[in-house]
Amino acid sequence: MTKEIRVPKGFRFSATTAGIKASGNPDLALIEAPRSAPAAAVFTRNRVVAAPVTVGRAHLKASKGKLRAILVNAGNANCATGKQGIVACENSSRALAAALNTQAKHILPSSTGVIGVPLPVDKLLNGIPQLVNQAGDSPEHVMAFARAIMTTDTRPKLATAQIRLGDKTATILGIAKGAGMIHPNMATMLAYVVTDVAASPKDLAKLLKHTADRTFNRISIDGDTSTNDTLCLLASGASGLALSDKKVGRLFAAALLEVCGSLSEQIVADGEGVKHVVRLRIKGAKSESEADQIAKTIAHSPLVKTAWAGADPNWGRILAAIGRSGIDLDPAKIDIHFGDIQVCRLGGAHPFSEQEAHAYLSEPNIQITIQLRRGQKAIEFLTCDLTSDYVHINADYTT
Amino acid sequence: MTKEIRVPKGFRFSATTAGIKASGNPDLALIEAPRSAPAAAVFTRNRVVAAPVTVGRAHLKASKGKLRAILVNAGNANCATGKQGIVACENSSRALAAALNTQAKHILPSSTGVIGVPLPVDKLLNGIPQLVNQAGDSPEHVMAFARAIMTTDTRPKLATAQIRLGDKTATILGIAKGAGMIHPNMATMLAYVVTDVAASPKDLAKLLKHTADRTFNRISIDGDTSTNDTLCLLASGASGLALSDKKVGRLFAAALLEVCGSLSEQIVADGEGVKHVVRLRIKGAKSESEADQIAKTIAHSPLVKTAWAGADPNWGRILAAIGRSGIDLDPAKIDIHFGDIQVCRLGGAHPFSEQEAHAYLSEPNIQITIQLRRGQKAIEFLTCDLTSDYVHINADYTT
Repeated sequence: MTKEIRVPKGFRFSATTAGIKASGNPDLALIEAPRSAPAAAVFTRNRVVAAPVTVGRAHLKASKGKLRAILVNAGNANCATGKQGIVACENSSRALAAALNTQAKHILPSSTGVIGVPLPVDKLLNGIPQLVNQAGDSPEHVMAFARAIMTTDTRPKLATAQIRLGDKTATILGIAKGAGMIHPNMATMLAYVVTDVAASPKDLAKLLKHTADRTFNRISIDGDTSTNDTLCLLASGASGLALSDKKVGRLFAAALLEVCGSLSEQIVADGEGVKHVVRLRIKGAKSESEADQIAKTIAHSPLVKTAWAGADPNWGRILAAIGRSGIDLDPAKIDIHFGDIQVCRLGGAHPFSEQEAHAYLSEPNIQITIQLRRGQKAIEFLTCDLTSDYVHINADYTT
Repeated sequence: MTKEIRVPKGFRFSATTAGIKASGNPDLALIEAPRSAPAAAVFTRNRVVAAPVTVGRAHLKASKGKLRAILVNAGNANCATGKQGIVACENSSRALAAALNTQAKHILPSSTGVIGVPLPVDKLLNGIPQLVNQAGDSPEHVMAFARAIMTTDTRPKLATAQIRLGDKTATILGIAKGAGMIHPNMATMLAYVVTDVAASPKDLAKLLKHTADRTFNRISIDGDTSTNDTLCLLASGASGLALSDKKVGRLFAAALLEVCGSLSEQIVADGEGVKHVVRLRIKGAKSESEADQIAKTIAHSPLVKTAWAGADPNWGRILAAIGRSGIDLDPAKIDIHFGDIQVCRLGGAHPFSEQEAHAYLSEPNIQITIQLRRGQKAIEFLTCDLTSDYVHINADYTT
């Protein structure tokens, strides 16, 4: 993986200012596959879903996973907007389809922003011609896209990786927005991954779900799940490497995991008010799912998260969170380490230097290891502290 | 119910300073039933339980629900303290039993405070003689008890009610400590309810569970569940009114609900950093349990709770929380009111004055009504906002 932006062949990017964000920043963005591309997507599991999720699911079904473009607006989630919201979303998809000489079912719409306010669809329609005209495949075009989809994000989020086989190179580029509400089942997270590997929609769907479960679904900022979450993977096939080739398949899966893992980390690190990124390592679990459940209970505990904000080595709160995770475990088998510092042994206090532990927990990236001694499974889960800045940012969002 | 403290016959109260709290405030407290009393208790459902919960459960079982005294210390939870913690708890129970000329199985021990630090049991043992000598049945004795069990509470929590039948009067007195970590399944909550009604341990247990499910289990501050929660009900029988009398039973159940309801409200209102107490009214549910599940998801959402802190009429976050509650509901049937102000109709925006809604949400007590249109069941659930003061209080608790 590289910090440099590498753009897969077969895609163009664009962004413009449609006037949806109150800030006046760019807020309408496009990814276009001029020759169209097989695609797969994972959406929020919230029962309340935004219009673009409803419409996007229908489009992917109708087109059998063939997309021509992704249209994203930031500043308005088009959620809880009723029939009018669906119509607005269909209208903008149709307008973009007409401009690209395709059908609406080949457009994936995405929205992020405030809930319950009608989408100013005329602003989107007015922005589309410029959006289409300006599209290009340079790193600058990619950066413009990444910036336009931001809401409370403080920085754009990108990750790229390449795989090489013989004289052929395939590229993966991921672009995401996050901040706040990030949580297993992907809250207010939009992530688009484009690649020039050749693949079927079915193979992409399988790989995407597997990857999401190990990356985007293993991060949590505040435990809230959004109504708009979307992760979409498009494969142009322009590299000449095909996923159906076993060797390509293996390399590609690893590279995709790396790209999605990096985007997940960037999302947590840029969570609202985050001062510490915490990597929870759950070891000795009977299954990955019980390890996930324990990690989520720790990651969603306000008492644990505020202790982290204060670099407070209060391991008792972590133990208490594990205890109420719903797993029928034996607390007397649990060890806890902050970095290399053991603080809990077999469910009880283990002597440690509070000063040393406080110094370790004051670092921006901390690692906490929980040994359960129940089995052989281990996972890593990324989360963060809960700071008074988070409260300030979220106490006054709509008004 | 009255603000005045009324003390049921057959109990004595006491408090002293054993030197467990760093503040030097009273931290050891006693409720004594000189003729012993049938009792029932409900404990935390956390898998990690403090030594006093383990020992208390065993004592209640061994004594078949007959208690002579309750011994409470604040400042140390005696949790995650291993075998040593159990031994410490048994030793203090035994010492109190000896001083009261009874057996250890008739003592219910309780602890609250920091987790993972060995209980300074010698301090408890040293405090017991004075505790026993000073015991009395005046309102001042009750207040001393109520103050000694406080940790981050800013005020003592008491509620009393009386029932009258013919020329006989029975009294119920409840004393609780709360603050932080309050949550269904009762987190760091200690509550003791004493009455001079006559009742069997079995009838008390049944009534207590029913009442807890409708009061203490319908409040939430931060969703964390403690390792030490205990709710205990003692009935001296000294009033001459018996629970087995149907009329007494009905009156007593209503009065107990009132006392426990009042204690629950006081606990939420005194939650750490709380600026707004929020009464969630879930209506039109298919069952009480689904209404509970929806209320808890709303009450545990940091995004919802921070919006309340800012008196922000962001109903979209509430709708999104309902959507991820796990209930397979139709969002397009949902109405939301802030007080009398309708903000959401059939899952979409309903026109309202933001200023008016902001003014309403700025009040210390707010009521939010969610109509689901799924059935006939309704519940009320008490919760609060999440403020930056909560973060400050909890970011630095042990160190």
